[in-house]
Amino acid sequence: MLPSKRSGLFITLEGGEGAGKTTQLARLAERLRSEGLPVYQTREPGGTPAAEALRNLLLFGEENFCWQSEIMLHMAARTDHLAQAIQPALAEGKIVLCDRFHDSTWAYQGYGIGEARQDVLDHIRSLRQLVGGEPDVTFWLDLPCDLARQRVTQRGGKLDRYEGQKMQFHQRVRQGFQQVAKEEPNRIVRVDASQSMEEVQEHLYGLVRQFIAGRTE
Amino acid sequence: MLPSKRSGLFITLEGGEGAGKTTQLARLAERLRSEGLPVYQTREPGGTPAAEALRNLLLFGEENFCWQSEIMLHMAARTDHLAQAIQPALAEGKIVLCDRFHDSTWAYQGYGIGEARQDVLDHIRSLRQLVGGEPDVTFWLDLPCDLARQRVTQRGGKLDRYEGQKMQFHQRVRQGFQQVAKEEPNRIVRVDASQSMEEVQEHLYGLVRQFIAGRTE
Repeated sequence: MLPSKRSGLFITLEGGEGAGKTTQLARLAERLRSEGLPVYQTREPGGTPAAEALRNLLLFGEENFCWQSEIMLHMAARTDHLAQAIQPALAEGKIVLCDRFHDSTWAYQGYGIGEARQDVLDHIRSLRQLVGGEPDVTFWLDLPCDLARQRVTQRGGKLDRYEGQKMQFHQRVRQGFQQVAKEEPNRIVRVDASQSMEEVQEHLYGLVRQFIAGRTE
Repeated sequence: MLPSKRSGLFITLEGGEGAGKTTQLARLAERLRSEGLPVYQTREPGGTPAAEALRNLLLFGEENFCWQSEIMLHMAARTDHLAQAIQPALAEGKIVLCDRFHDSTWAYQGYGIGEARQDVLDHIRSLRQLVGGEPDVTFWLDLPCDLARQRVTQRGGKLDRYEGQKMQFHQRVRQGFQQVAKEEPNRIVRVDASQSMEEVQEHLYGLVRQFIAGRTE
């Protein structure tokens, strides 16, 4: 549905709570920038003023959306993000680094909240097809849920509506990522996130550098 | 007393600005209630706490959503409205009277803002199919745009983002309603809204009463 002509690279980071995505992405962006690469760093839900307004509703609002509507809101935010931020950045030849994207909807709304029910997964698939905008490559930071929970607890601060969910929820989210990684092995690269921040960063950086080199040769 | 196939009746009122929909719907609801009929009165965008939050964003927000996203937000609001208000009311055998529904998206987002571009209309059609929830009957309050503008100006008060648009916009919106009325003559009944409030109410009430009688015989 949205124009797909692009000259940049669209890289997404995915994973459950406590996997370290946000920190890893910031460090990665800094390193690539320091090498003179044109990086556009962004996140979901959000990434444009309009989509950030939806992020607030979705993560911190008191409104109780039905599940179909909640999924549609994530997709509406993504549509705006693609049209007004990601695609223009790609058209300028930038490397877009995005914290969460389609796979998070699959894992959180499809597996976590939707418990992998067929009608929920079908709804996500239909909307995803309408929205478009597939990443060139996705790095999935994976770690066991008990370790993830420890990290989130140590980190402290206010929990959003997903972080505050029970362990079973996070296990289903992980299953969602596992399932999509199995289905799309050419796009999704699993990264073991149970090591230290520094070790994970070295591994991730190496993979990203390798991917960029392969695409720009 | 209501049909058994689908226990309630879903009636929508449509039309451009100044057609008198909101006033007519309130009077109609009052009259039907005074006859002992179970009426559920509602409106779009909105109708549930979650959908009203989206209404605020859409009508009065400062965020500038891309057109694809704006349409998706209207559909997300509608999805919640259907799931959490309209369908439960219909299941209880109520007569649902709704101020605006799918046809307004078609006329405003498709014709008014989207200028009837094929990609815009296709986007609306795809989402409409996903959302579902077609009314049993729709009364379209139609009047010439110059007369509508006079009424809106006389009414005064704060204009929302659609009321404040130029005449050409409202002419396209009217074309949108004309087009869908032509395409679905079995569902959509045109009501001449250029007469006085009282005359339009008598006409509308007669049509609604006739429709209810036909469905409950």
